[in-house]
Amino acid sequence: MTGHGYGADKTALTRRMNRIEGQVRGIAKMIDDDRYCIDILTQVSAATKALESVALTLLEDHLGHCVAGAVAAGGENADAKVKEAADAVRRLVRS
Amino acid sequence: MTGHGYGADKTALTRRMNRIEGQVRGIAKMIDDDRYCIDILTQVSAATKALESVALTLLEDHLGHCVAGAVAAGGENADAKVKEAADAVRRLVRS
Amino acid sequence: MTGHGYGADKTALTRRMNRIEGQVRGIAKMIDDDRYCIDILTQVSAATKALESVALTLLEDHLGHCVAGAVAAGGENADAKVKEAADAVRRLVRS
Amino acid sequence: MTGHGYGADKTALTRRMNRIEGQVRGIAKMIDDDRYCIDILTQVSAATKALESVALTLLEDHLGHCVAGAVAAGGENADAKVKEAADAVRRLVRS
Repeated sequence: MTGHGYGADKTALTRRMNRIEGQVRGIAKMIDDDRYCIDILTQVSAATKALESVALTLLEDHLGHCVAGAVAAGGENADAKVKEAADAVRRLVRS
Repeated sequence: MTGHGYGADKTALTRRMNRIEGQVRGIAKMIDDDRYCIDILTQVSAATKALESVALTLLEDHLGHCVAGAVAAGGENADAKVKEAADAVRRLVRS
Repeated sequence: MTGHGYGADKTALTRRMNRIEGQVRGIAKMIDDDRYCIDILTQVSAATKALESVALTLLEDHLGHCVAGAVAAGGENADAKVKEAADAVRRLVRS
Repeated sequence: MTGHGYGADKTALTRRMNRIEGQVRGIAKMIDDDRYCIDILTQVSAATKALESVALTLLEDHLGHCVAGAVAAGGENADAKVKEAADAVRRLVRS
């Protein structure tokens, strides 16, 4: 039991992060090998998309667990959790 | 009373949307006047940012009202509301 | 003759901007009518996407005309035009 | 001599990619350690931003070298290069 929302998908998330680490290493190698810019940009877009996709999974779990838990418990903390989640979304949208 | 989360800020939201409508009309006029592409692109980026900012306000209100309400009520609808909000975030991040 | 890159597609661009203006006005009305947040967010994402798509059209024309012209003419102005276009892309990606 | 535009900044780019690889590995470890979702999301946003920033550097170099070179040489290849660069921007904006 983790106390966080992503416990159930942890293995899948770890696998996705390992894959992204491999993508990032691959891009570094492409730069090192003087590969064609556009091909590198394609890989950067793919890695960015994969990272955002992990973020969206984490966010959904977070809304369904931490935020929902705080809301169910009520009080000031509920508002703070909602605000915190909205700020995280703001950073994602802007990044 | 609106039944939705954005009731309180409705006047402010309406004002922001009116301003965005003005920005969009301004961009159309810049194109019509053959203005310099980069200046037009700057205005398009500003309008896009303003639209996203409205979306983030709506989303925060939605999380704090509709989603929180559904979670407090519990049951299947709570999960559906969390999923629906996460999907809306996905569309925002991708757009 | 416009001196800018988007002359040829001007009618199409104007039509697209008019449609976006309609979308923005529609969103303002949805807010006024207390429509469901998620439905409004869907429309905001669509309008944002449409604006970005216009920006990408303008940018491609700009690269193919203004930037290409400056590069063909050579000299310091070529570098300045490339830098200016890259900065515009930066604002688009960040917005 | 690399034939590509990013030769001059290769060391800096490699250093930035190494740092991003470290960020990605750090995120994987945060997930493994059951760290708080919002803190993980903050790191994901930072890594995404760093990747996009590398992409923008690559793109600027590409416009200033490959695209400029093709445009200076003229002919069909110039149009193809502009189109290819615009498509890369499209993928970046959408990712």
